[in-house]
Amino acid sequence: MAKDISEKLVAAITSMDKDFAQWYTDIVKKADLIDYSSVRGCMVLRPYGYAIWELIQKQLDERFKASGHENVYMPLFIPESLLQKEKDHVEGFAPEVAWVTHGGSEKLTERLCVRPTSETLFCEHYANIVQSYRDLPKLYNQWCSVVRWEKTTRPFLRSLEFLWQEGHTAHATALEAQEETINQLNEYADFCEKVLAMPVIKGRKTEKEKFAGAEETYTIESLMHDGKALQSGTSHNFGNGFAKAFNIQYTDKDNKLQYVHQTSWGVSTRLIGGIIMVHSDNNGLVLPPKVAPVQVIIIPIMMKKEGVLEKSEQLYKKLSNTLRVKLDKSDKSPGWKYSEYEMKGVPVRLEIGPRDIEANQAVLVRRDTREKIIVSLDNIENEIQNLLDKIQFDLYNKALNHMNNKTAKAETMEEFEKILKDNQGFIKAMWCGNQECEDIVKEKTGATSRCMPFEQEHISDKCICCGKPAEKMVIWAKAY
Amino acid sequence: MAKDISEKLVAAITSMDKDFAQWYTDIVKKADLIDYSSVRGCMVLRPYGYAIWELIQKQLDERFKASGHENVYMPLFIPESLLQKEKDHVEGFAPEVAWVTHGGSEKLTERLCVRPTSETLFCEHYANIVQSYRDLPKLYNQWCSVVRWEKTTRPFLRSLEFLWQEGHTAHATALEAQEETINQLNEYADFCEKVLAMPVIKGRKTEKEKFAGAEETYTIESLMHDGKALQSGTSHNFGNGFAKAFNIQYTDKDNKLQYVHQTSWGVSTRLIGGIIMVHSDNNGLVLPPKVAPVQVIIIPIMMKKEGVLEKSEQLYKKLSNTLRVKLDKSDKSPGWKYSEYEMKGVPVRLEIGPRDIEANQAVLVRRDTREKIIVSLDNIENEIQNLLDKIQFDLYNKALNHMNNKTAKAETMEEFEKILKDNQGFIKAMWCGNQECEDIVKEKTGATSRCMPFEQEHISDKCICCGKPAEKMVIWAKAY
Repeated sequence: MAKDISEKLVAAITSMDKDFAQWYTDIVKKADLIDYSSVRGCMVLRPYGYAIWELIQKQLDERFKASGHENVYMPLFIPESLLQKEKDHVEGFAPEVAWVTHGGSEKLTERLCVRPTSETLFCEHYANIVQSYRDLPKLYNQWCSVVRWEKTTRPFLRSLEFLWQEGHTAHATALEAQEETINQLNEYADFCEKVLAMPVIKGRKTEKEKFAGAEETYTIESLMHDGKALQSGTSHNFGNGFAKAFNIQYTDKDNKLQYVHQTSWGVSTRLIGGIIMVHSDNNGLVLPPKVAPVQVIIIPIMMKKEGVLEKSEQLYKKLSNTLRVKLDKSDKSPGWKYSEYEMKGVPVRLEIGPRDIEANQAVLVRRDTREKIIVSLDNIENEIQNLLDKIQFDLYNKALNHMNNKTAKAETMEEFEKILKDNQGFIKAMWCGNQECEDIVKEKTGATSRCMPFEQEHISDKCICCGKPAEKMVIWAKAY
Repeated sequence: MAKDISEKLVAAITSMDKDFAQWYTDIVKKADLIDYSSVRGCMVLRPYGYAIWELIQKQLDERFKASGHENVYMPLFIPESLLQKEKDHVEGFAPEVAWVTHGGSEKLTERLCVRPTSETLFCEHYANIVQSYRDLPKLYNQWCSVVRWEKTTRPFLRSLEFLWQEGHTAHATALEAQEETINQLNEYADFCEKVLAMPVIKGRKTEKEKFAGAEETYTIESLMHDGKALQSGTSHNFGNGFAKAFNIQYTDKDNKLQYVHQTSWGVSTRLIGGIIMVHSDNNGLVLPPKVAPVQVIIIPIMMKKEGVLEKSEQLYKKLSNTLRVKLDKSDKSPGWKYSEYEMKGVPVRLEIGPRDIEANQAVLVRRDTREKIIVSLDNIENEIQNLLDKIQFDLYNKALNHMNNKTAKAETMEEFEKILKDNQGFIKAMWCGNQECEDIVKEKTGATSRCMPFEQEHISDKCICCGKPAEKMVIWAKAY
């Protein structure tokens, strides 16, 4: 009976081999992460999905504060004239913003856009508050939602509105700004690897792919199950371009006026899409323990037998001190509960029934490998903590192996196209530095330059496209 | 020298007796809570102001979660047709919303408003996810910003955009919805009194003053220094009105279709305006310790003398374990620092100099009373914790006395008007229940009905306005 129900629930997810996009959508809906609404391209983040975001937020926020950053909140709207102050920036964003034209029944004299990102607002504020070198650096961050008028949208990956954080900093020197840019990129990479168990490649974007208004854009790129890349976080060095456009100047120690040097950096709810596509399987979501809203689900077996519920509640109370635990006392069958929490990606299931109690033990089941482990009740807190650590570690290594197995080198366009066909993933290939070649590769193969990784390799002397002398090794991939 | 600078800074604030509105604006700016931006009516919440909001948020969020509420995130936009589904609601809000009419260069087929509040979105979602009595109650909350197109704005008190939380719940029965409405009102009142040290009056709004679409609106009203009222939080019982408009039905235990009963409740950054106008003085902000981003500021005296900085850092490290502490090692004079942290409302200043170190003591200065207390370094953690508790307690009692001293009873319109002139504050007076009388009182005096308090008193038999039999005692006041 239990088995039947379990199979019914599982059958409801499309297999990822059959239809990866549908598999993704099924998980997002059936794990109760989101609901659709009548607002095109916007999603409802349900309690379980939002709880994952809260865990991401909390851990990132602690890291930002530990390195001296402070949170602020800027207005939701940007007047059109303010958006237009930096030429490249407005060209990049104006085509994809939502415009407010009326307040109540009154037509506005100037349109306001809903922030797609807040560089212009931070710049205006910095121009107000920065006077002397003593006021620097300013290390600000903001948690908010932003809006970009996308044509096609997918939950978490690309939506009209999404939640994110945007760091914006102002520094006295170019060197300090560059250090901040790289430090925050490293912070993101470390967070992805240690907390989300998601390996990433760090590198610099090409001119074509960099942020509108930036001197340099750095990125972390991760690889999904299907061999497509996900840009998971970016960090930009603006030099003093915005400072000149917004006149953000300070008096240095020699009493001379100088422009500040700025950075910005952001990650978003897109990371949740990454977690899904890196770790999950055909039974549903798989969550790394560090961002799992429920780390352990306790399921009593033969719940009506004397002592079972009591013991379950004791365990719940004991484990709650250090772990995020849930006890499911509902009258659904154990088999139904198994599938439900598998779908939701709870890392460890704890089964406890009359015979376990008699033997002073419990059964632990790993979500990722479905391995069963029998442990003594005496030391169960430590046993579970160790198991969670092991799951976190194993998820990372599994993802790293996957990424390595799907990273190949190409010396010719033929090799490049063959790899994309046979084993789609990251392709390392040399590039002359010319944007035309980038465009040709994209047109021919659908793959884009993801980044010029910090760890460069010498694959050949020639650009994969034009055959001219190569300047950089680029990682290419089809991308979300 | 130190004294001079101190006086210079202090002189920069307008005295509250001279110009209360200017005193308020001065504090908001000079305590670094906000900055203005080029977006009309929107403010920049600076790190110090935002840190107060984070402390409010954290403590409220813990309370909400402890009573079973879950956080979600709904879209920023509401399609015009969705806003129009509940008649009273749209009439109340449509005149004051911001309309998005264009996405990029494309004109939208249907206008979207920027959420002024999210009842309609929650209703649409509940209609999707509620089927059976087993799905109830739904106890959701959202932290976000909302937009209301106000004509005149003031930081924290009334702005085009503000940060808030909005709780939205759905219940099987009318009784449960009413309980939730009152429980959350009580939660707000307890939070204001215990955490913000701000006494409030709990009561029900009249028909005229209730929320657009609600069956009943309950409120907590607090009294500012200047004798004006601040509506500090509201809790609404919607009955099944929204459920009928949005068709939110569930199957009950007898397999019959029933409409859900709903509530919503919210508080906002307006509470920060309340903190300012209840506690602060002519030297600047005064913060209750429980929401002070810095609870103790350590100021080394004769910093260059051997051992002073070392001892200050020891103290900082020791106190940081349990308190929010800052050590100011900058080269500004102590007097300058005194005024600076007085302006910022830091509850306790700790001065430590060579003579103190020799005597194994430190000087504590209370922000609220400016009282100096000499304490031994041996037990300083406890001394400070006790002092912070005492400040929290004293601030509440001082505010309570102020409110009581400014609460009067009126039996006639002449008395009513005299009180408003002599000692503006809360006025208790009887009311017949007729909206016309409410309108007349407002027109004649500028005071509005704040609420019908839960604690009713019998002041006379007659309505203060028309002389007909009285139904309720109402608290009246001029209000923000």
